[in-house]
Amino acid sequence: MSQATIAQIQSLTREQLPFALAYGFRLEALDSGTATVRAPYSNEFLRPGGTISGPVMMGLADYGVYAAVLSCIGIVELTVTTNLNINFLHRPEPGDLLAYTRIIKLGKRLAVGEVEMFVEGKDELVAHVTATYSIPPGSVVSPISKPHQAGR
Amino acid sequence: MSQATIAQIQSLTREQLPFALAYGFRLEALDSGTATVRAPYSNEFLRPGGTISGPVMMGLADYGVYAAVLSCIGIVELTVTTNLNINFLHRPEPGDLLAYTRIIKLGKRLAVGEVEMFVEGKDELVAHVTATYSIPPGSVVSPISKPHQAGR
Amino acid sequence: MSQATIAQIQSLTREQLPFALAYGFRLEALDSGTATVRAPYSNEFLRPGGTISGPVMMGLADYGVYAAVLSCIGIVELTVTTNLNINFLHRPEPGDLLAYTRIIKLGKRLAVGEVEMFVEGKDELVAHVTATYSIPPGSVVSPISKPHQAGR
Amino acid sequence: MSQATIAQIQSLTREQLPFALAYGFRLEALDSGTATVRAPYSNEFLRPGGTISGPVMMGLADYGVYAAVLSCIGIVELTVTTNLNINFLHRPEPGDLLAYTRIIKLGKRLAVGEVEMFVEGKDELVAHVTATYSIPPGSVVSPISKPHQAGR
Repeated sequence: MSQATIAQIQSLTREQLPFALAYGFRLEALDSGTATVRAPYSNEFLRPGGTISGPVMMGLADYGVYAAVLSCIGIVELTVTTNLNINFLHRPEPGDLLAYTRIIKLGKRLAVGEVEMFVEGKDELVAHVTATYSIPPGSVVSPISKPHQAGR
Repeated sequence: MSQATIAQIQSLTREQLPFALAYGFRLEALDSGTATVRAPYSNEFLRPGGTISGPVMMGLADYGVYAAVLSCIGIVELTVTTNLNINFLHRPEPGDLLAYTRIIKLGKRLAVGEVEMFVEGKDELVAHVTATYSIPPGSVVSPISKPHQAGR
Repeated sequence: MSQATIAQIQSLTREQLPFALAYGFRLEALDSGTATVRAPYSNEFLRPGGTISGPVMMGLADYGVYAAVLSCIGIVELTVTTNLNINFLHRPEPGDLLAYTRIIKLGKRLAVGEVEMFVEGKDELVAHVTATYSIPPGSVVSPISKPHQAGR
Repeated sequence: MSQATIAQIQSLTREQLPFALAYGFRLEALDSGTATVRAPYSNEFLRPGGTISGPVMMGLADYGVYAAVLSCIGIVELTVTTNLNINFLHRPEPGDLLAYTRIIKLGKRLAVGEVEMFVEGKDELVAHVTATYSIPPGSVVSPISKPHQAGR
């Protein structure tokens, strides 16, 4: 069970994450260790060739991992990113971006999340991201309900 | 269908990849865009605390992506890594390492692979890797048979 | 000598990089293979604790590498990022951000840039970034005037 | 002043880092927050085309950052890598590899190092690496003597 609700994270976003708010990012689904976030399409995101700008994708991925981490530790404001690695795979066509996020490591001090990003309705991965968050000392970390399966 | 066979890649390994050979890496499964490689357990891999050393895990992941790229382009010797990013997630207990690899982008000039690494028989991810290979000009790139699905 | 002028890149920014424009990024210095870009301080960038949000830092680094790549190849619009890795090192205090960028590899198909980011007037690195750009086929790549020195 | 001596780290290498030992890595210089390590040239490292294999370069970089971290915290065996990102920039010609390492962030829980790798006597960067180490709780972290300068 998630340690933070969608409503709690949305409220935190309005008060404290102006970047996510300015770009209209929405948290659409949340469970213990997973989150889905959306960037509604906007002309402001465009780069030459009609493609969506990289920083918007990086910001969306970062937001998805943030939500997924909070789903495991509850509302802990000073949880911060320490590393983010993004591979841009295909230029996104115009459309909403969806970032599917899952936590792949949850320790006492660090959490690592993985993000697969798509344009809604398309099957091609537009970006793949891993990001590490530092968990403040004293946080209560609840286990992920469905750990990843070896061998798939 | 894979553009290279397991036997072809094993032969290439013996002749030209002394690192993989020295560590006994084995290519266990191969399909168009996916590969599974194994590092048999050896005392030589150990670090303090009985854990397997990082470079062995990095080498295994690199080998898995190499095989998965060749499954798409055939035997092209000068295919080289341009970037590798690894997150070490849990210290591996003693045991064989298995690296499940899939190609997440296959372009004319670059291929990107993703690796999930486990100790055989355990469910925890010990490492997650993304790696980019540069594809030599003139290579014939065949499509991946089963592209990744949005939304999972 | 740079293959693109500051004025040319600023003009390109106004027309085609709405993200950089919206955040007021400024290209302050440009030479063959190096660029310095600035993010003027704004309340909009803040996260909880008065720190600047990660996506702004990622966007600034990406912009710095873009300018440094164009200094080597001239105005080539379809030059795009393929990979970006950022380590967030210290929470920035309020102030302008400065990103010092240099190209560490310039090939026919790929360029790699490195960024060191500071708050103006402070000595602590707030972030370190490497980013790879794909260079469109047919681009004319001019050599970097002052290559990096081994041993320093 | 370094919290660990070259002799101490060499002794630790012999006892506990079989990978570094097997490849003959040598710690050549050490100061508070910096280290230089060498991989003597060996035919065993070769890949097709006479180039040095990637895992050897990754292992050397990891070893350099390990030494540089220990220079700041002393001999703490359970210091482990959490993330490593490498960009392969130019294929190394035959020759010894030298990895110049510096710590760019030293916190209570995490240290980040940067590595520039050259073939001895050549000016081209063959690889650039950043790596993060987790510092065990209770370690005494001494400050770096010469912090990096903004603006260079």
